[in-house]
Amino acid sequence: MNTQNPPAHDDARMERGLAFVRKHNPAAAKALLEQLSDIAPDLVRLVAEFPFGDMYARGGLGPKLRQAATLTALACGGHEAQLRIHIGIAHSLGFTRDELVELFMQLAPYAGFPVTINAVLAVKEVYPAS
Amino acid sequence: MNTQNPPAHDDARMERGLAFVRKHNPAAAKALLEQLSDIAPDLVRLVAEFPFGDMYARGGLGPKLRQAATLTALACGGHEAQLRIHIGIAHSLGFTRDELVELFMQLAPYAGFPVTINAVLAVKEVYPAS
Amino acid sequence: MNTQNPPAHDDARMERGLAFVRKHNPAAAKALLEQLSDIAPDLVRLVAEFPFGDMYARGGLGPKLRQAATLTALACGGHEAQLRIHIGIAHSLGFTRDELVELFMQLAPYAGFPVTINAVLAVKEVYPAS
Amino acid sequence: MNTQNPPAHDDARMERGLAFVRKHNPAAAKALLEQLSDIAPDLVRLVAEFPFGDMYARGGLGPKLRQAATLTALACGGHEAQLRIHIGIAHSLGFTRDELVELFMQLAPYAGFPVTINAVLAVKEVYPAS
Amino acid sequence: MNTQNPPAHDDARMERGLAFVRKHNPAAAKALLEQLSDIAPDLVRLVAEFPFGDMYARGGLGPKLRQAATLTALACGGHEAQLRIHIGIAHSLGFTRDELVELFMQLAPYAGFPVTINAVLAVKEVYPAS
Amino acid sequence: MNTQNPPAHDDARMERGLAFVRKHNPAAAKALLEQLSDIAPDLVRLVAEFPFGDMYARGGLGPKLRQAATLTALACGGHEAQLRIHIGIAHSLGFTRDELVELFMQLAPYAGFPVTINAVLAVKEVYPAS
Repeated sequence: MNTQNPPAHDDARMERGLAFVRKHNPAAAKALLEQLSDIAPDLVRLVAEFPFGDMYARGGLGPKLRQAATLTALACGGHEAQLRIHIGIAHSLGFTRDELVELFMQLAPYAGFPVTINAVLAVKEVYPAS
Repeated sequence: MNTQNPPAHDDARMERGLAFVRKHNPAAAKALLEQLSDIAPDLVRLVAEFPFGDMYARGGLGPKLRQAATLTALACGGHEAQLRIHIGIAHSLGFTRDELVELFMQLAPYAGFPVTINAVLAVKEVYPAS
Repeated sequence: MNTQNPPAHDDARMERGLAFVRKHNPAAAKALLEQLSDIAPDLVRLVAEFPFGDMYARGGLGPKLRQAATLTALACGGHEAQLRIHIGIAHSLGFTRDELVELFMQLAPYAGFPVTINAVLAVKEVYPAS
Repeated sequence: MNTQNPPAHDDARMERGLAFVRKHNPAAAKALLEQLSDIAPDLVRLVAEFPFGDMYARGGLGPKLRQAATLTALACGGHEAQLRIHIGIAHSLGFTRDELVELFMQLAPYAGFPVTINAVLAVKEVYPAS
Repeated sequence: MNTQNPPAHDDARMERGLAFVRKHNPAAAKALLEQLSDIAPDLVRLVAEFPFGDMYARGGLGPKLRQAATLTALACGGHEAQLRIHIGIAHSLGFTRDELVELFMQLAPYAGFPVTINAVLAVKEVYPAS
Repeated sequence: MNTQNPPAHDDARMERGLAFVRKHNPAAAKALLEQLSDIAPDLVRLVAEFPFGDMYARGGLGPKLRQAATLTALACGGHEAQLRIHIGIAHSLGFTRDELVELFMQLAPYAGFPVTINAVLAVKEVYPAS
């Protein structure tokens, strides 16, 4: 453990971030803590604080638009594990399965069909049949 | 010119696509035709037909969510010229400048700050100051 | 299922595309239909129509050169599932195993050795030993 | 300006980050503020706070190793403007011109020669001849 | 200059590589030497030796198929300077302008239209009108 | 096997490269030979000669800085199998587990958190608990 690195952290930001993930994808929050807490406790803090605690707490953009940005970035980057987590969050934020399929179909002309197909198969795995 | 390649095209799809770009970003429609019509006329058709004629005509997803997917894919892919075109289309579809800035800020944790910064600078160039 | 989205489709394009995949990689055609038909029937149509129905029906470029473009794009993009499908198509189009190995070795200086190694291991999986 | 979004910020983190950039690349600090302060003031804060205020203040890794990670990520991502900024920071952190050339040459087998060549040309632009 | 690094080089490989570039794109050979010889002489050697001296001297794959792999990797990686150099080499190897346009159109379904459009515009710049 | 392609190889470079991998990650050296020797013997030679025989034999940069470049390029490129091999080499070159975690945390602002998380999980798999 990196004990020389305490300065940047902030319990309020971390709690707000963990609360967001626990609300919208509790299994992912648990897995994040279990997988990373031993090897990289500061990374757990950073993930809780910055993307979840800071960014998802911001206004100025509807939550579905914000989540569309996250989902597209993860699909285009080929980050399959994180994409599954955020498809779960998208479900909790009100996306229907067909909206997600449609969102990922829109990527085909800009990032290619493989990106679309892989993301749609991830939706199929994560979502209950509608 | 590739005269052996007429089969796949369809005037209705092409017209629908060109009408969409002319409505939402007329300068981009003009530039597309001027830059590519001589060297790759079939590519002009494919771009008009498939992304603009087919995909943007689809329902099942709000137009701002659909455009958020396009914008994110282009920002993450580093496609600056196409990103500028689609920021113009986003303006026409009702995105405010601040919403776009917020959308691109959301990419920082997932694709890195450089993607966000480059996209925000593109918004600054394309949008009139608000 | 997205029932609001019928307009863009064209049975001739779709049939031509499905015929191409059935001829050159029947197992892939079957898997495509089985995996995606329930969740994203319009995506199945788009894949059949555009890449397979439109692009592979075009002239103006030898079929092995066309397939080299597809294979390289998939290897560089890290799209392993689609790369395996298209290695199977390459076999049907007349590529020998050694030609494919040589094609992917050529990527090492431009995209790095990991891209080459992963693609060569995919060839080894898909091709019968020569 | 996004006035609904004040919560996550922290003057100590921001000041620490700005101090780091001002020390190691004052021209870049000035440009960052000038280019982004009007359109995206919260992005300026996030950049100052998170990468510069949080990450560069961490211990547990030598400053040259930390900077090698940044430089490589920017070179591999094709982020040329940010790469130039961080080559300037690398100079201030004690990298010689030849060390940077050597660092970027090491990328050739893993990310391809174009990544190496573009990064070396950036070193040539930014560094005074040695 | 890195004087501690002589061991790996081989004049025969370097000469063969430089001869290839001089034959197929003499302006690029000159620019490579002029841009990099002062800052990174060993990189000039590596580029001459490995991609040009080793890979392009290999048999087992037709020269147009080999060049198709290079062109696609560069287009998909967004490496515009190197893509222009290799479009010039492609011309010398016998690709017509229309074949190159067709090759890059084939990338649209797999890597997205922006990759295709940027590559086709590069062909337009490099090739004399046909 | 590609018997027409002997010219570029050099036993001294290959032996030096194999000796490096055998010393720093013997399991990886064995796997490389076993997986690729039958299908792509020349690729085994190229990998042994160029990245391991040439690049790792160079001076002018400390071995940990050189390895940081390799590790970052592999993490950013999403090349998980090669990343694991090079985490093993990093261990042999003297990186502690916490240094590696810190190195990969530094990528979060530049390449996104998913790159960091995937690389840290790879460290956890490869490294014995510290």
